[in-house]
Amino acid sequence: MANALLTREHAIHLDALDSLGSLRDQFQLPEGNIIYLDGNSLGFLPRATAPRLDQVVTQEWGQGLIRSWNNAGWIGLSRRIGDKIGSVLLGAGPGECVVTDSLSINLYKVLMAAVDLAIEKDPSRTVVLTDRDNFPSDLYIAQSVVSTRHGMQVHTVTPDALLTTPSHLSTSVAVLLLTPVDYRTGRLLDMPSLTAAAHAAGILVIWDLAHSAGAHPVDVHAMDADFVVGCGYKYLNGGPGAPAFVWVHPRLVHRCTQPLSGWLGHQNPFAFAPEYTPADGIQRFVSGTPSILALTALECGIDTLAAATPLGGMVALREKSLHLTSFFLELVDAWIIGHEGMETITVATPRDPQHRGSQVSLRHPTDAYAIVQALIARGVIGDFRAPDIMRFGFTPLYTRFVDVFDATAALVDVLRTEAYKDPAFQTRHTVT
Amino acid sequence: MANALLTREHAIHLDALDSLGSLRDQFQLPEGNIIYLDGNSLGFLPRATAPRLDQVVTQEWGQGLIRSWNNAGWIGLSRRIGDKIGSVLLGAGPGECVVTDSLSINLYKVLMAAVDLAIEKDPSRTVVLTDRDNFPSDLYIAQSVVSTRHGMQVHTVTPDALLTTPSHLSTSVAVLLLTPVDYRTGRLLDMPSLTAAAHAAGILVIWDLAHSAGAHPVDVHAMDADFVVGCGYKYLNGGPGAPAFVWVHPRLVHRCTQPLSGWLGHQNPFAFAPEYTPADGIQRFVSGTPSILALTALECGIDTLAAATPLGGMVALREKSLHLTSFFLELVDAWIIGHEGMETITVATPRDPQHRGSQVSLRHPTDAYAIVQALIARGVIGDFRAPDIMRFGFTPLYTRFVDVFDATAALVDVLRTEAYKDPAFQTRHTVT
Repeated sequence: MANALLTREHAIHLDALDSLGSLRDQFQLPEGNIIYLDGNSLGFLPRATAPRLDQVVTQEWGQGLIRSWNNAGWIGLSRRIGDKIGSVLLGAGPGECVVTDSLSINLYKVLMAAVDLAIEKDPSRTVVLTDRDNFPSDLYIAQSVVSTRHGMQVHTVTPDALLTTPSHLSTSVAVLLLTPVDYRTGRLLDMPSLTAAAHAAGILVIWDLAHSAGAHPVDVHAMDADFVVGCGYKYLNGGPGAPAFVWVHPRLVHRCTQPLSGWLGHQNPFAFAPEYTPADGIQRFVSGTPSILALTALECGIDTLAAATPLGGMVALREKSLHLTSFFLELVDAWIIGHEGMETITVATPRDPQHRGSQVSLRHPTDAYAIVQALIARGVIGDFRAPDIMRFGFTPLYTRFVDVFDATAALVDVLRTEAYKDPAFQTRHTVT
Repeated sequence: MANALLTREHAIHLDALDSLGSLRDQFQLPEGNIIYLDGNSLGFLPRATAPRLDQVVTQEWGQGLIRSWNNAGWIGLSRRIGDKIGSVLLGAGPGECVVTDSLSINLYKVLMAAVDLAIEKDPSRTVVLTDRDNFPSDLYIAQSVVSTRHGMQVHTVTPDALLTTPSHLSTSVAVLLLTPVDYRTGRLLDMPSLTAAAHAAGILVIWDLAHSAGAHPVDVHAMDADFVVGCGYKYLNGGPGAPAFVWVHPRLVHRCTQPLSGWLGHQNPFAFAPEYTPADGIQRFVSGTPSILALTALECGIDTLAAATPLGGMVALREKSLHLTSFFLELVDAWIIGHEGMETITVATPRDPQHRGSQVSLRHPTDAYAIVQALIARGVIGDFRAPDIMRFGFTPLYTRFVDVFDATAALVDVLRTEAYKDPAFQTRHTVT
């Protein structure tokens, strides 16, 4: 007998009950029969973005010209959007968070600042500890930073080892750099516990929310975090290559130096002084002049998350996210795992909801890329990460339960019919 | 008897004769009676920008979503625009220039790379030599870079001293970092001569075209330049905070390492390898994911300069620029310098056209800020730079001779009537 909870009718019923369902109306939906499960790579376009950008371009730039730095508030835009991110996503107070540059650049700034703070306190701490499966930019930036500090090294561990063997948090570790959600598997780390364990061992912690800002609640003050950076173009819907954010705890920020000392991080940029004096607070993490167009689009993106605040905010979004990923896992378990011809498909994402981000990843040892391509050809957009991962992102702001149902049905069809064996789906593109 | 060459009729006649006059039609002009002499801070809005951005936002992002990294060519956009800048502005070949990040960030990258190359060849070279009146970001970044290298120092000189006392280019100098156009005075340095003198002394040269990219011809290969960076939002009309560009000579680029080792500078980013291997050429100066919206606007800006190519390109634009600044200086000499009540006004910009960028700066010892404000209130937009500089930028793509005439007439009126003494014009804003 079919399970009544795994039907399309039930999915539609779940959508009807969803108190966050109306948030989807904030977005310009793609035309045609597209099911988009890649908001963890690039979020949807908010409806507000194109008109707001047009206004900024034609009025603020075209008419206001240079005067708009004052009259349209451009000079404060990095801070204004930082405050929104701080308030909506991080539990931070005003003036604690700023939007600037890319995530790789911001990671360099905070890691340099953290390493210097750690060495200043205890020169014998010579290790930057991170996850060996961390996103490449994190590993590359960590390698770069330690190369500038004599005797420093990057050590990598698995997060499991961190949890099971606390001795990894040794007295030689200066900074722990972690990404709470693994970009391949979607595994979510316990940020408060790991922060507390690191602090107990005298270690500063950098959390890189690259793959999770806007996907689960974070309370930087409750966990007494040190440094947080995050990405603007995934769950924040800020557009392709949107700028990134930096948050630093107020107890640390005034002691931080970061090497990308551009003029807008100066205490008094318009004095054009020959010596660098960093601004008092988080503004010291700004370097050069930010793109006002990129910031404008990001602000429209953040506003789509802010709209969830009266409906329960990040807690409600997280609850829906887990409901979506659980529903997907139930469907995958019922229809795919262990079924004939699909024996090589496995689930890469933790089944414990507490350890799961807002994505579910499946593995196929040889054809993950082609399966993703075959799904895209059917209008179901997920993505592939080498060597064997198929990623499906569920964005509670706009993903519906019926999308989950239809996507899984399409996946089953691709697998059953072996549609992915078509040579057209096996050809690799640059980006996947 | 009045000079017939200093009349409004003559200015209109010069505009009628101007073979580049039609290039102004490429821009969305500000409404009202605005004379904009601040294109050296923020260029005009090209007419093409708003519709192109709308297309990128609504179609490429809104409809194409993640697929546009391949299908709309986003992944190659930094390089495509870099090639345009290389070809139109720098005399560079394809694949030599890339657009990425802000100018401050790019300066850090190239200075770190240059210092490392210099030390590798000769560890006794411990000085980064620069202009003491350089733009603050250049000084701050230089201070930051030397602080990471044991024993290194920043020395500053005046450019005049460099020209008159070649011994400043000593065997202790590793890198010479110069901005060809001084942002305050508009003085233009002789890039080929200084490059040759530095090379003869075994010194690598970084040219920061912050205040001049798009304002005068540059031929990186003819002068055998090493490193060039430049700004996208001034003469390039890329919009507020537009991304910046990096060019590195092909004989050097494959030997360069830069510390902001983000994933998109990797030789094979989509392999997600744990170790950083820089891309072969200029792509290694890219770090994280660039803003596609900011790049899109910049490309529209570059296209307004590319449109001058069939009309004589940068050489013709430079000729018009000098004609505009000379006309302004003639008017200022005839009407202001030494006249009663205006005795304290002096010209800060070199009178020799070979040593003049595309701006003219005047000094007033006490009221430069207020005079600029009073002019802005009359619709004549220049800007102020502390402590005593009034800057007037002349952009040959869209500034007319009649604008020069009318702006000077307004300045004379502000000075004669002492309109700037109104307290409203004395109050300082954040940005000027």
